[in-house]
Amino acid sequence: MSGISGRIEELRREMKACGIDMYIIPTSDFHESEYVGEYFKARSYMTGFTGSAGTAVITQEEAGLWTDGRYFIQAERELFGSPVTLYRMGEEGVPTVKEYVGENLKEGGCLGFDGRVINAGAGEEYARIAAEKGGSIAAGEDLVGRIWNERPPFPENPIFILEEKYTGERTAGKLHRVRKKMKEKGADVHILTSLYDIAWLFNIRGRDIVHVPVVMSFAAITQKESIWFVRHKVLNPEICRYCTENEISIRDYEDIYDYARSISKDKKVLLDKGIVNYRIYNSLKAETIEGPNPTQMMKAVKNETELSNIRNAHVKDGVAFTKFMYWLKTHIGKEEITEVSAARYLENCRREQELFADLSFDTISAYGEHAAMMHYSATPETDVLLKPEGFLLVDSGGHYLDGSTDITRTLALGALTREQKLYFTTVCRGNLNLASAKFLHGCRGTNLDILAREPLWMMGLDYRCGTGHGIGYFLNVHEGPNAFRWRHVSDGNSDCVLEEGMVTTDEPGIYLEGNYGIRTENELVCRKAEKNEYGQFMEFEIITYAPIDLDAILPEEMTAAERGFLNAYHKMVYEKISPFLDEAERMWLKEYTREIL
Amino acid sequence: MSGISGRIEELRREMKACGIDMYIIPTSDFHESEYVGEYFKARSYMTGFTGSAGTAVITQEEAGLWTDGRYFIQAERELFGSPVTLYRMGEEGVPTVKEYVGENLKEGGCLGFDGRVINAGAGEEYARIAAEKGGSIAAGEDLVGRIWNERPPFPENPIFILEEKYTGERTAGKLHRVRKKMKEKGADVHILTSLYDIAWLFNIRGRDIVHVPVVMSFAAITQKESIWFVRHKVLNPEICRYCTENEISIRDYEDIYDYARSISKDKKVLLDKGIVNYRIYNSLKAETIEGPNPTQMMKAVKNETELSNIRNAHVKDGVAFTKFMYWLKTHIGKEEITEVSAARYLENCRREQELFADLSFDTISAYGEHAAMMHYSATPETDVLLKPEGFLLVDSGGHYLDGSTDITRTLALGALTREQKLYFTTVCRGNLNLASAKFLHGCRGTNLDILAREPLWMMGLDYRCGTGHGIGYFLNVHEGPNAFRWRHVSDGNSDCVLEEGMVTTDEPGIYLEGNYGIRTENELVCRKAEKNEYGQFMEFEIITYAPIDLDAILPEEMTAAERGFLNAYHKMVYEKISPFLDEAERMWLKEYTREIL
Repeated sequence: MSGISGRIEELRREMKACGIDMYIIPTSDFHESEYVGEYFKARSYMTGFTGSAGTAVITQEEAGLWTDGRYFIQAERELFGSPVTLYRMGEEGVPTVKEYVGENLKEGGCLGFDGRVINAGAGEEYARIAAEKGGSIAAGEDLVGRIWNERPPFPENPIFILEEKYTGERTAGKLHRVRKKMKEKGADVHILTSLYDIAWLFNIRGRDIVHVPVVMSFAAITQKESIWFVRHKVLNPEICRYCTENEISIRDYEDIYDYARSISKDKKVLLDKGIVNYRIYNSLKAETIEGPNPTQMMKAVKNETELSNIRNAHVKDGVAFTKFMYWLKTHIGKEEITEVSAARYLENCRREQELFADLSFDTISAYGEHAAMMHYSATPETDVLLKPEGFLLVDSGGHYLDGSTDITRTLALGALTREQKLYFTTVCRGNLNLASAKFLHGCRGTNLDILAREPLWMMGLDYRCGTGHGIGYFLNVHEGPNAFRWRHVSDGNSDCVLEEGMVTTDEPGIYLEGNYGIRTENELVCRKAEKNEYGQFMEFEIITYAPIDLDAILPEEMTAAERGFLNAYHKMVYEKISPFLDEAERMWLKEYTREIL
Repeated sequence: MSGISGRIEELRREMKACGIDMYIIPTSDFHESEYVGEYFKARSYMTGFTGSAGTAVITQEEAGLWTDGRYFIQAERELFGSPVTLYRMGEEGVPTVKEYVGENLKEGGCLGFDGRVINAGAGEEYARIAAEKGGSIAAGEDLVGRIWNERPPFPENPIFILEEKYTGERTAGKLHRVRKKMKEKGADVHILTSLYDIAWLFNIRGRDIVHVPVVMSFAAITQKESIWFVRHKVLNPEICRYCTENEISIRDYEDIYDYARSISKDKKVLLDKGIVNYRIYNSLKAETIEGPNPTQMMKAVKNETELSNIRNAHVKDGVAFTKFMYWLKTHIGKEEITEVSAARYLENCRREQELFADLSFDTISAYGEHAAMMHYSATPETDVLLKPEGFLLVDSGGHYLDGSTDITRTLALGALTREQKLYFTTVCRGNLNLASAKFLHGCRGTNLDILAREPLWMMGLDYRCGTGHGIGYFLNVHEGPNAFRWRHVSDGNSDCVLEEGMVTTDEPGIYLEGNYGIRTENELVCRKAEKNEYGQFMEFEIITYAPIDLDAILPEEMTAAERGFLNAYHKMVYEKISPFLDEAERMWLKEYTREIL
């Protein structure tokens, strides 16, 4: 931990040298990616907190770290003994980063950050806050970069093309739709910097972020041109030919800033200020039209090719998970299994499946109290032996060329308390209540979230996160704008109407600090149900196929309808998965998908 | 109906004379009141449609009427044979009034309306739409007034003071809170034109709108002054003394426009553009601060005195309703009872209660297919004999000095079909599911609405309105900002966080055109439940005390938890109401609040 103190002192010296009084280090690359490559882990380098979300703010007097409820327990542990103060976002009385900056930047002070890792909207907001204090911002300096010895290299990994049989739509068609949207909005140029959206639009994939198959690049679209700003080093003849065929011209990654500067003043540029970085935005002379990237909604609504591929990927993933579950439930207590070795076994089950490309995120294999940390990741230091008792929570998924998966099961490894079973059953009821919803078109995730949460709320319990998120197609496992959450987000972008073809996770849970954690996660495809005089009804299709552990279910705590829905789900699981199992596994699955009364 | 044609022709002549191409006649007085006095029923006079909500638009070629789902059936009937076209708001492909105006106002055309019956926000919007067509607006003419022979007189009814034992807070305290809010918002003047808010703020009541105890008046508040713009004719020495004591100065009703004009340019005026009329707004030279009236939220959150009064009012109202229900259920088929005579009997039961002031709205007593019209009102022409079969839907309430009530019960008058019982049970389940919710503070009505609606949605049914509305304290029976609805309203004002002390109705229903209607309505007080590490939990207290007709319940279609909640509710009803009944009624109530299994 003394390493962290030393780094903070070094940064403070650099801040003094630049006349910067307060320095903000968010968790971001130059593209507002959710997960970032090692090169970009400046906040982690500076504070020691390794969670995927958080912001550090450093002054001469204080070093603070802001993170959300998913990470409170982990952050407490990782910051213990360091000079960094934890700010628990969302808790009563805890200032937001912006409130903190507003309250603590001294009059006339200088607020610094690297303008490439702060988005345009946030950058403008910080500039406004600094101006209110008669101060200024300094957005040109990557101060952490100056003191970071042995910084990992900038990601430059091979690119590949995703064929039409996987994507269901060619780049030409996608570009056509984007250009139509641009016309509707009166935009001459569209600057697109979201790595997921660029990958979707150009039907290319890479591996520049661990478990996120994207390519570090920017894009600019006009009615005539599409320009891809990408490091030349990662190109190969096939990609160059593909770009030529698709009329995509290539420029260097760093050229985006010059390009932005070169757009003439009378043009209108469509961009998402919540994603495009402040340096690009600041380089523009042209007027901007603010709005979500048109590709965001387009890629969220999966086409029929994608949906049919995704279902297939889920069958394979379900086979992998079921084999793992069989092995674990039949071997526990008989041989040495740890969190890490269990995760490795599951990974191997996935690797055996066709078209497997990668895990879709680091497997969470969390035993006992570790599972109370929502995003716990077992390391050799934290790894524990699994005992034939209590719960193992496994949140995992695979990227296949035909789709990405995200599934959580909490498995009973042996004896459970009645409380454990009751809570497991309650989580299961919440999960099924949401999955079995029927609703009128026009509903948003905020309308439906309570279906999953109410069984827990009735007990005075909650999970400090949304109920579910959209999921990308062989892309980032978290994808907007669809989601299930109850809190009203002013950003209209993240509370959209649920449309047919959207895929969203359904993952209520219970997290008891120092004790255990339970989560059951399925993916739901939004589909049209009947249309009548009341409107278009919608419903969900569950596309995750793996048993929900009946050893932890108390049937008497479920309504007849809930038991019926669980039985129907398990019947489907058996039908989809059993053809791919050996006899012993099949017998076991029959038992674990049996009807409960 | 030829009367309507004649009126429309007359209006068209006036329009021609004034050079107005399109004239809008909304349903409003000069205060955006929901219900309006006879003097203001210009839209009804012009179209024949008598529902409480609707807008007419007249051109030389067309006369259109817009109304919402509650009124489709009634409007069809009332417009039948007239030259007025019905536009069903919210239905697919039906333009909104504004869209219609934008599409149909000719280039350079003149759009007319009376600027006193259109709010500032809508007036500005119409001005913008007209300007886009190179046209103009004419807001100075009340054209309907010109042709309206024998127009009812402007309301000028007596005023009375509501004592502190009823209001729980003196005017001085309320003014202090409003002035504090004005300071926070940097406002020098606050113009308040909502009749409900003025009545609440000054603790006065009147009877200028049928069943809404308000006084036609405007108010203006500064840090030093409170001015009440009211017709001198309605004042008496007691009111004048009260105003002097409370430092409220009095000016004439019509002076508000001069007053608005006289506010100096450097002042800032807080007003709600959705309520203040366009003529007042247009008279201002001063800058405005747009926002909800601070009194809106203040009066929505009932104080402990009000809550304890309201509970008492509901016991009396429950006694009245129970006596009515007993009489109806024991006399049906034995004597001649009609929709109107049943309503009259119920009214008399209410009139016998202490502190009764008025009905809180026109009783809906709707038998059979009449109940499929959500806001049916029985008239001598439509009145029918009640037969000992099917459903009678009764939606009614009372204003008492200690609170207003709004209750709906659907009563089985004899044999029911299984479908009728199933639907009744489903509505009851929705009602109870919402009432028994527990949720974290921060939830809005949009988060909770689905709890009431989902049982119906599962059957492919819906009701075309919100699930519930806030309710005033001896004021308008519909009151914001609290409500239960699922549709996202961009007006943040009408989708507020549910706070302790808010009273909201819970009234899901089923409406089968030409067949029957079912609605069960209770009022819910929002209360704090436990506070723990997850936050402040909230729950509801049901304060409506009357049996939900067990003759129409199918216990086997409810979960054990739902039956338990209904039983607990009925137990409470018996405890609250039975002390006020005679022996025969008490025996009957015991039976109708029995435990079901």
